[in-house]
Amino acid sequence: MREQWEHEIERQWLTRTKPPGSLGRLETLVRDYLCVRERVREAEFAPAMYLFAADHGITAEGVSPYPSEVTAQMLANFQAGGAAINVLARRHDIPLYLIDAGVGAGTANFAVEPAMTEEQCRGAMEAGKEWARRAAAGHTMAGLGEMGIGNTTTAAALLAAYTGLPGEAVAGPGTGLPAAGVAHKAAVIDRALALHEPAGRPAEEVLRRLGGLEIAQMAGFVLEAARLRLPVMLDGFITTVAALAAVRMEAAAREVLFFAHRSAEPGHTRALEELGGVPLLDLGMRLGEGTGAVLGLHLVGCGLELYAGMASFASAGVSDAKS
Amino acid sequence: MREQWEHEIERQWLTRTKPPGSLGRLETLVRDYLCVRERVREAEFAPAMYLFAADHGITAEGVSPYPSEVTAQMLANFQAGGAAINVLARRHDIPLYLIDAGVGAGTANFAVEPAMTEEQCRGAMEAGKEWARRAAAGHTMAGLGEMGIGNTTTAAALLAAYTGLPGEAVAGPGTGLPAAGVAHKAAVIDRALALHEPAGRPAEEVLRRLGGLEIAQMAGFVLEAARLRLPVMLDGFITTVAALAAVRMEAAAREVLFFAHRSAEPGHTRALEELGGVPLLDLGMRLGEGTGAVLGLHLVGCGLELYAGMASFASAGVSDAKS
Repeated sequence: MREQWEHEIERQWLTRTKPPGSLGRLETLVRDYLCVRERVREAEFAPAMYLFAADHGITAEGVSPYPSEVTAQMLANFQAGGAAINVLARRHDIPLYLIDAGVGAGTANFAVEPAMTEEQCRGAMEAGKEWARRAAAGHTMAGLGEMGIGNTTTAAALLAAYTGLPGEAVAGPGTGLPAAGVAHKAAVIDRALALHEPAGRPAEEVLRRLGGLEIAQMAGFVLEAARLRLPVMLDGFITTVAALAAVRMEAAAREVLFFAHRSAEPGHTRALEELGGVPLLDLGMRLGEGTGAVLGLHLVGCGLELYAGMASFASAGVSDAKS
Repeated sequence: MREQWEHEIERQWLTRTKPPGSLGRLETLVRDYLCVRERVREAEFAPAMYLFAADHGITAEGVSPYPSEVTAQMLANFQAGGAAINVLARRHDIPLYLIDAGVGAGTANFAVEPAMTEEQCRGAMEAGKEWARRAAAGHTMAGLGEMGIGNTTTAAALLAAYTGLPGEAVAGPGTGLPAAGVAHKAAVIDRALALHEPAGRPAEEVLRRLGGLEIAQMAGFVLEAARLRLPVMLDGFITTVAALAAVRMEAAAREVLFFAHRSAEPGHTRALEELGGVPLLDLGMRLGEGTGAVLGLHLVGCGLELYAGMASFASAGVSDAKS
């Protein structure tokens, strides 16, 4: 079926008053989006943003320049509408759902014990699936965002566990660690890898031992979105690692993923490679919250509007290329 | 003065509830924009798009897969609202000004004679300056776009003349030439360079001999925009070469330039290097019309809204990083 949709979408693009292919990735983005949606046109593009927040026990190891109270403070800031993601979601008229995935009641310190119990991890994934079902009922695409002091360390540990890379290959400055802090973070990750021995363990067990509650919810979200053919726009490092966890559980989940931007956090490039994702934007952003995902959703919206709204050569009386 | 503005803008960004620098180029974009505007904040961002269209005598050499009638047909399409730029300008609520810089009454074939008379070239530049004065009176930033069958050949010839590069280094497929067509285009450019001997000639004389009427208007626009401190968002290859012509006439014009995207047209990368421009987007677009510039203006608007609209650490009660 995919080939048929692609062919029909390509055919429609060719009728539009522009040289073939000249809108570049805006054209392929529309094709990939509609193929996930299993249709050749869509009456309305109705995206929404889902922001998952949670605390991380790993902060006890001194891996962030910000105190872990900032997670709850930022959740309050999101609720009050004062954060970057609020400004961008408002500007793009995209509804923003805030999900407390474990603020205050966060994970355990995975440097000394598993981050989650089996019940916690399963519960978080189920909650994420439920959000995906609600998203698919009211929206045509979902953007993911996250907040959680300590979660670049969590994501880096998961990435290391899923790829076999050492701590130093995945640890980065996060919200702004100096070089010595990054080295410490890498050492904490190596210690955790030695403790949990992730090689050969099932992907969900790796997530339970080294993950975060917001990451587990997002992994569940992606799995259910794939089942429901709901396209998902990833943001930066954390959301991409959550999607990687989902893909390691269910390879077909890769199909619904879109990659908004390349984060300045170095581990993100490694995570993108692992998923074969080519991001739309490269603006040196590294804030998270879904700030890159909103910009990615905007590009999908632009592409769809061009696809549906441009005149055809015939209707506009424009001569096509000499063949 | 610039140092003072930069310092104050940086100081304001640091109060915002996010890690320092984490919005990447959205932050530096706001800084650069406000420094051109010579202020540290702006009540309203009011951009507009200016689309310059003209015909090119060089089409007689068979350098485009489209007949030159398409320039007039596309101008009618712009007026009717059916082109890609119309869709994107509407979506971003950005006014679009259409300028007939010489549709029908285009340039002469620069492969055999100068493209413009002195009067034509001077008149086109003056008309562009007048558009810049109107833009500065009603808007805070201008995006440039263009349309003109044959104008990638014109822009490539100008780029070659301003840099000393041969035809093969600047000629590209434009709207979709096959390899043989690109080689022919390069040969036509080399012939024109041999005829006009641009080395050592004043920048305006090079423009007159090898340029286009829409390019001359855009060069005039950039010169006047620089005088009036109006920031200019360039689109792709043609607009960047027009800006290069302006900078060759008046080096200070570089200051007001912003680079929306890297066009898939290969000469664009060379033109960007010549101006030291780092584009915001790289989406494989190569349509022109200002389609990339609109997306660039959107990013400036997003940056300014974040800068003005985000809560501060103090107002939101969020703890700042441990120092």
